[in-house]
Amino acid sequence: MSVLAFLALSLATLVADPPTKPEEQVRGVLTAQATAWNKGDLDGFMVGYWDNDELTFYSGGSITKGKKNIAERYTKRYKADGKEMGQLTFSDIEVQVLSEDTAIVRGRWKLVLKQESPDGLYTLIMKKLPNGWKIVHDHTSASEPVKSPEKK
Amino acid sequence: MSVLAFLALSLATLVADPPTKPEEQVRGVLTAQATAWNKGDLDGFMVGYWDNDELTFYSGGSITKGKKNIAERYTKRYKADGKEMGQLTFSDIEVQVLSEDTAIVRGRWKLVLKQESPDGLYTLIMKKLPNGWKIVHDHTSASEPVKSPEKK
Repeated sequence: MSVLAFLALSLATLVADPPTKPEEQVRGVLTAQATAWNKGDLDGFMVGYWDNDELTFYSGGSITKGKKNIAERYTKRYKADGKEMGQLTFSDIEVQVLSEDTAIVRGRWKLVLKQESPDGLYTLIMKKLPNGWKIVHDHTSASEPVKSPEKK
Repeated sequence: MSVLAFLALSLATLVADPPTKPEEQVRGVLTAQATAWNKGDLDGFMVGYWDNDELTFYSGGSITKGKKNIAERYTKRYKADGKEMGQLTFSDIEVQVLSEDTAIVRGRWKLVLKQESPDGLYTLIMKKLPNGWKIVHDHTSASEPVKSPEKK
């Protein structure tokens, strides 16, 4: 290949697929998660998590470890009979890229369901792995206990 | 000073004040916090936090920013009339030192009060600053809502 052809190819690649900054990549994971959730695609949502037993999910006072167990937790809460996934929004997202392969993400979550709209906060530790940025630790808290139907 | 005297002095310093690993320093901050809390010393407890407006405290669905506001939040909850600080324990502490000056700490907290014993989880981001390791972000969640006196 001539130098000119090489340069032209490099330029074409650059234009077609511009390199994204780590912060944008990290935000992209959250956007993809919300998009998947809002299609009812829990497996797609789970792609954002590290597939490792060391993955941790802290919520309230309970610790769930490993992608499979976390997926099961979500399934029980949002995909079981009579449950719904609703519409998820992430907002006030703050990304701190600590190093080439580590970032902290904080923000708010809100879920709009038929009868209620729980919301709260999350703190994520994310690592850049060979298959992209993944959540390795998720600490999620809720504004208030989910209202029982009797209280509506 | 002779080389021998210098070496002797260095050795004495080393024995008197052995260098501690970052993980031990980080754990030391939490131990000092619990010790201060359990003496009713809220100011001493607050020494573990970064004195900066960028310090963030996430709990449930509320964000509190800055050391002063966080101290006020604790004061209202645990030092106001009819309130008590009780006995605080940190357990299951996991420290991940990410770099020379950044660490993530996760664990459980438990507070034993006269009428109830709330507990939960925390995820801390800690930074090594000129005055030592400080909490720059605290995400705390509780196992369950604190029971109101009527329910006891």
